[in-house]
Amino acid sequence: MLIVMEAGARPEQIEAVVRHVEKMGFKAHPIPGAHRTAIGITGMEGTADPEVLENYPGVKEVIRVSKAYKLVSREARPEDSVINIGGVDVGGNGIVVIGGPCAVESLEQTRAIAEGVKHGGGQLFRGGAYKPRTSPYSFQGLGEKGLEILARVREEFDLPIVTEAIDLETLALVEQYADCIQIGARNMQNFSLLKAAGRARKPVLLKRGMSATLEELLLSAEYIMSEGNYNVVLCERGVRTFADHTRNTLDLSVIPAIKRISHLPVLVDPSHGTGKRNKVAPMSRASIAVGADGVLIEVHHKPEEALSDGPQAVLPELFATIVRECDAIAQVVGRSLQPALAAR
Amino acid sequence: MLIVMEAGARPEQIEAVVRHVEKMGFKAHPIPGAHRTAIGITGMEGTADPEVLENYPGVKEVIRVSKAYKLVSREARPEDSVINIGGVDVGGNGIVVIGGPCAVESLEQTRAIAEGVKHGGGQLFRGGAYKPRTSPYSFQGLGEKGLEILARVREEFDLPIVTEAIDLETLALVEQYADCIQIGARNMQNFSLLKAAGRARKPVLLKRGMSATLEELLLSAEYIMSEGNYNVVLCERGVRTFADHTRNTLDLSVIPAIKRISHLPVLVDPSHGTGKRNKVAPMSRASIAVGADGVLIEVHHKPEEALSDGPQAVLPELFATIVRECDAIAQVVGRSLQPALAAR
Amino acid sequence: MLIVMEAGARPEQIEAVVRHVEKMGFKAHPIPGAHRTAIGITGMEGTADPEVLENYPGVKEVIRVSKAYKLVSREARPEDSVINIGGVDVGGNGIVVIGGPCAVESLEQTRAIAEGVKHGGGQLFRGGAYKPRTSPYSFQGLGEKGLEILARVREEFDLPIVTEAIDLETLALVEQYADCIQIGARNMQNFSLLKAAGRARKPVLLKRGMSATLEELLLSAEYIMSEGNYNVVLCERGVRTFADHTRNTLDLSVIPAIKRISHLPVLVDPSHGTGKRNKVAPMSRASIAVGADGVLIEVHHKPEEALSDGPQAVLPELFATIVRECDAIAQVVGRSLQPALAAR
Amino acid sequence: MLIVMEAGARPEQIEAVVRHVEKMGFKAHPIPGAHRTAIGITGMEGTADPEVLENYPGVKEVIRVSKAYKLVSREARPEDSVINIGGVDVGGNGIVVIGGPCAVESLEQTRAIAEGVKHGGGQLFRGGAYKPRTSPYSFQGLGEKGLEILARVREEFDLPIVTEAIDLETLALVEQYADCIQIGARNMQNFSLLKAAGRARKPVLLKRGMSATLEELLLSAEYIMSEGNYNVVLCERGVRTFADHTRNTLDLSVIPAIKRISHLPVLVDPSHGTGKRNKVAPMSRASIAVGADGVLIEVHHKPEEALSDGPQAVLPELFATIVRECDAIAQVVGRSLQPALAAR
Repeated sequence: MLIVMEAGARPEQIEAVVRHVEKMGFKAHPIPGAHRTAIGITGMEGTADPEVLENYPGVKEVIRVSKAYKLVSREARPEDSVINIGGVDVGGNGIVVIGGPCAVESLEQTRAIAEGVKHGGGQLFRGGAYKPRTSPYSFQGLGEKGLEILARVREEFDLPIVTEAIDLETLALVEQYADCIQIGARNMQNFSLLKAAGRARKPVLLKRGMSATLEELLLSAEYIMSEGNYNVVLCERGVRTFADHTRNTLDLSVIPAIKRISHLPVLVDPSHGTGKRNKVAPMSRASIAVGADGVLIEVHHKPEEALSDGPQAVLPELFATIVRECDAIAQVVGRSLQPALAAR
Repeated sequence: MLIVMEAGARPEQIEAVVRHVEKMGFKAHPIPGAHRTAIGITGMEGTADPEVLENYPGVKEVIRVSKAYKLVSREARPEDSVINIGGVDVGGNGIVVIGGPCAVESLEQTRAIAEGVKHGGGQLFRGGAYKPRTSPYSFQGLGEKGLEILARVREEFDLPIVTEAIDLETLALVEQYADCIQIGARNMQNFSLLKAAGRARKPVLLKRGMSATLEELLLSAEYIMSEGNYNVVLCERGVRTFADHTRNTLDLSVIPAIKRISHLPVLVDPSHGTGKRNKVAPMSRASIAVGADGVLIEVHHKPEEALSDGPQAVLPELFATIVRECDAIAQVVGRSLQPALAAR
Repeated sequence: MLIVMEAGARPEQIEAVVRHVEKMGFKAHPIPGAHRTAIGITGMEGTADPEVLENYPGVKEVIRVSKAYKLVSREARPEDSVINIGGVDVGGNGIVVIGGPCAVESLEQTRAIAEGVKHGGGQLFRGGAYKPRTSPYSFQGLGEKGLEILARVREEFDLPIVTEAIDLETLALVEQYADCIQIGARNMQNFSLLKAAGRARKPVLLKRGMSATLEELLLSAEYIMSEGNYNVVLCERGVRTFADHTRNTLDLSVIPAIKRISHLPVLVDPSHGTGKRNKVAPMSRASIAVGADGVLIEVHHKPEEALSDGPQAVLPELFATIVRECDAIAQVVGRSLQPALAAR
Repeated sequence: MLIVMEAGARPEQIEAVVRHVEKMGFKAHPIPGAHRTAIGITGMEGTADPEVLENYPGVKEVIRVSKAYKLVSREARPEDSVINIGGVDVGGNGIVVIGGPCAVESLEQTRAIAEGVKHGGGQLFRGGAYKPRTSPYSFQGLGEKGLEILARVREEFDLPIVTEAIDLETLALVEQYADCIQIGARNMQNFSLLKAAGRARKPVLLKRGMSATLEELLLSAEYIMSEGNYNVVLCERGVRTFADHTRNTLDLSVIPAIKRISHLPVLVDPSHGTGKRNKVAPMSRASIAVGADGVLIEVHHKPEEALSDGPQAVLPELFATIVRECDAIAQVVGRSLQPALAAR
C-alpha cells in the first residue's frame, strides 16, 4: 500500500497518517519527494483495510500494491500444474480440445455429437444438464436425466465429461456423475458455490466472469483452493465491452498474463467468447498460438435445431478441422495434442 | 425478429429462409427493398431460437426485436408498483433513504449506526450479515449472529431491515429475520437463488450486476416474479467501465430507462456505485433528481475502523445532510420523503 | 513511481534497479517489507519513463504515482475558475443552460430555435456549422454560411455562441465568428487542434472523449492551457460501455471527481450523453444536482425534420421546463441560474 | 430500418408513423404480429434520419438495419484487396511483419534498429517522427528531421517506411518522405485528416480508435476511399475495457469480422494493443493464427533508454523470433511471409 500526500500537505497531516498506520499495526515508511510525500506501508496481513486513509486530510490517493492471492500464484508453486480429468491431462506440454453441445437434449443427440467429437479427435466431452439462462422462459436443461445421458456417453466413447453445476444441489450430482465440475461465468463470484466446489473431489473448470478482472478470477480460484481442492482449470470466455461484432470480446492477452502469475492451466472458450460460428475456428487457432492449454468448442450435428446457442455451434466436420489446426499450431509453439483415451 | 439478407442473395436463398421459419412454426414476412430483402418474423413464443438462421447462405444479419420479459413490464401493469417493506412504502410518490453499515460487526457498532440513521431521517436500515468478498481471506460477515443483531436493532429503533442472502441456506435465514431480502450484484444471475427468492414471502431488493444490461436486469426480476413473488425492488449500483476515477461507473440514465419499461420501483446505491465517500452526497442528490425512488447509503460512525468498505461509508452527520438534500430535491420533482415508522 | 519487487527477488536484482533509477537522475527509496521490497522513486520531472524497469529481472510491477497535469490542477489554482463567454460567466456560483440545434440548417430554423432558447431562459446558444459525422455520406454542416447565421442570431437575440471547430482552418473561422470554440469528443486527443485552440483568444469548451479517462481529459485541457489560453470549460458527454439502453453512458460521478482535482468549470451534455429525448430532462436535473456548472441541450422546433440527431433534440417548451427545473435544483445546492444577457 | 410499435399501439398511431415515413420519401411495410406491429422501411438513401420516429406516440423502438459503408465492403469488391507499400504487398496470401521504434530519436538509434528489423526478416519499417502524446510535457517527436532520418534508413536498408501524420501539415510531409501514411487511433475520427489522406497518393494505414466499433472503423476507411484513395490498410490496436492486466484489450475477433465484411487488408499492433513486452510475441502468433495480414511490432535495441513506450518494445533478437514464429503459423493457415525487398 502506498499513500500519496497532496503537494501542500502539512507535516502534522503526514504525521497523523503515519500514526494511524502504526495504530493499525503496520509499518509506515515516509518518502519525502521534491513536491510531495508518499508513505509506503508494509506488514499488512489479515483483514484491516488502510484504504480508509483516503479520507484523511492532506491525502491525495491510496494505491494498493500487494495482491491477496497466494495458492494460485507462482510464488506458491513455480512449476505448471497439470490437472487430470478422468485420465486426460490438462496443462503441461499437451493441449486438449473439448467438444460437445451447449445443452444435452436427448440420448440420440448426445450420442451423435459425442461420436463426432471422438472421431474428430477431441479428448473430453462437454454438455450442459443444468443451463443458466438469462430468461426464465428459456430451456433450462434436462437436469439429472441429462447427467445420466452424459454418463452413458462417457462409457460408450471413453470421453471424460465436463458439465456445469449451478448450485449446491446440482454440484453434488455433477460431482457424482461427471469427471470435471464446471463453474460458469455467471457464478464466478458465487462464493458459496466456489467453497463447495473446493470441498468436492473432482477437478473444477472455472470460467472467467463477464466483467471479472484477472485478479478477481484468480481470487475465485483461490476460494476453491483454500478449501482444499487444488485441481482447478481456468477458462477465458469473453468479457463485456462496447464492441458489437461479437457477443463478447475474447481477451486472449489474459492467457500469457495468467501464465506469468499463476501455475494453473487455462483454456479458452471461443464459442461463448464470440457467439458466432464463423469466428470459432480462427479464435481456436489464436488461442493455441497465444499459449492456452486447450479450447472448449460447442458442437452440434444439427445446429439449426439446437435448443440453445445454435448460432455458435459448429458441425462435427468443422470440429475435426479445428482439432487438426490446433495440433498444427501447437507444434509451432513446441507442444502437441494430448492423447485421447483409447476407445474401447 | 428480423432477418436481413445480403445484397446479392438469390431468390432461392430467400425462399429457403422463409421455409425454415415456417417449419419452426412462425410466420415469415419478406420485405423486398431496393438493394436487399429483409424478412420479418412474427408468432414467436416459447423456446426455439431463429438466430441459427444467421448461418444460412445469403443471410447477412439476424436482429432480435421482441424482449422476453412479461411480468416486469408496463405492458403487464401500466401503473407504478409500490412495495411495502416492513411498513414502509417503496415506490409511488415518496422516496426512501436507506442507511447502515456495509457489514454488521457488533451490537454496539450496529446500534450506534442505527441511532444515527434513525435520527438522520432514514426509513430503512441496511447491514450485511453475509458478505460476498472477492478474496477468501477477507471478513465474510457475522452470519446468523449478525441477523440477530439486526433484528434487535429493528425492535429498538423501528427500522425495517434490508440484508443480503448469498445462497439458499442464508436466504431462508434472511427471510426469517429481515424485512427485505437483498440479492447482490454478483448474484444477479444466480438463477437458483432468484427462483428461491421468488418463493419467499418477503420483498426482494435486486441489485444490477456489474456488467448487466437493462434487459438482463429485468429478466432477473422476471425470474423472481415468475415464481410468484411480485414484491421486487430494483437497484442500480454501478457498472464496470474503463473509467478509473470511481470504483464503478454509476449509470443514472438507467433509472428513466427502467421507469419507461417497467412498473417496479428502483433505488440507487451511490456508496458501492462510486466507492468514494466524497461522491456519495452528490450522487445521492443526482439519483433523486433523475427519478429514483430512493437511495441506499453506507453509514459508519467510525469508518476508519470498518471491517469492510470503510472508504465509502459516510458519518451519521453527513447521512442526515444527505436525507435533507434528497428531500429538497424530491420536492422539485413533485415528490417527498416517505414517512419513517414512528419510533416507539 | 513505485516499483514492486517479486517475493523472491535477490538483493543484487534490487540493487540493479536502484542503480538504474539513479542513473536516470532520480532518487530511489527501497522499502523492505515482510515478503517483498518496494522501491519508491522521487525527483522525476521531464520526459524519461521509468516504466521500462518493468522488464528488469525480479520486478513484479511498476506503479505510476504522480500525474502530469499542472495548470489544470487545484494545486496550481485552489479557487474555482470562472470563464466569461461573450458576457456570460460559466463557473462560480451560477449555472448556465446552453441550448440550440445539433446543426445549423438555415436562418429560419436557427432563428426559430434561438427564439425558443431565449424565451425558455437559456443564456448561451449552440449549433454546429461543421459537423463531424461517422459516415462520409451524412450531412456535414453548412460551413462558414452556418457561422454567419449564428452571428446574425447572436445579434438578434443577444445569445453568445458556442460552436465546434474540427480542424485548424475551421478553428480560425470559429474564433472569428463565435464566442466560444467547442472541441468535440472525437477531437479530444487531436493535439494539433488543442495547441491551436491554446493560441486562440476565445474560450474553449472541451468535450470528454468517448473512452477518455479523467486524467486524459485533464491533460487535453493542459495542452490548451500550456499554450497560454486559460479559458477552458470541460464537458462530460457520455462514455462507451456495454450498456445499450442509451447511446452512451453519462458518467456523472466525473463531475465531483473533476471538482476535487481541477479549478475548471464543467458542463454536462445529456443530449449526446444519452441520445434519447426522454432522458434529457431527468439527466439535466441530475447534472445540476451532482454539481455541474451547467448543461448543454439540443433543441429543435421540428425534431422530426432535423438533419442530424433529431431523436435526442427537445422541443422549445421542454427546454423551458428544463431551465426551470435546473434552476430549482440549483437552489437546493446553494446556487442559481446565471443571468442571461438583456435582450435588446 | 424497422419500427417496433408498442403492444397497445392504436391503429391511428400506426397509420401516423406510416404516413410520416412516406412523407420522408420512403416505403413503409407494416407487419402485424400477434402482440404488436412492426413497420419495415425501405428505399432509404441520402441524409434523412427516421430515428426521430422513436418519439412518435405508440412507438417502442427503432432498429437500424442497413449499414452506410459501400466502398469498403465486399458487396463493392468481393475479392481481397492487395495494397502495395513501397514495393511490398500487404494482403493476399503473404503476411508482413513491420518493425521499428515507437519514436525516431536519432540517426544512430534508427539505423541500429533498422539493421535489426532487416536482419530479423521484417519487410517494412515503422517509426514516429510526430508523436501524439497524452501529456503536453512528453517527447513529441523529432518532426521533419525524423522523416529525413527515416528516408535515409530506407535507402540504406531497402525497408519501405510507415510513419504517422497527425494533421494536414504533417500529412503533406509524410506523404513526401514515407511509403505509407499512418493515421493513429486518436485520429481515427479526425475526419478532416481522413479526407486529406483520401487525396494523398500514398497508401494509408488506418488504426482502430480505442472505443471504435467495427462499423465506425469501416466508415472511417470509407471517408478515405470516398475521396479517391483506395489503398487503405486497417489495423487493430486494442480497445478500452475494464481489464487492467494489459494497457488495452486486443480484440482479435475483429479480424475475421472485418474479413467477412470488407476486402481491405488488416494488421494487428500487439505492442500498443497490450503495452507489455512479454505479451508481444504470443499475441503476434495469435494475430497470424486468427487471419491477420501481418503485425506491427515496436523494436528498440535499448528499450530501457527509449524516449517513449519502452516497456512494450522488444529487442531485435526477439523480433527475429517473432518473424520466424509468424512464418510458421502462417504456413498452418496456408500462407507465408511476404518476401522482403532485396537489400542492395
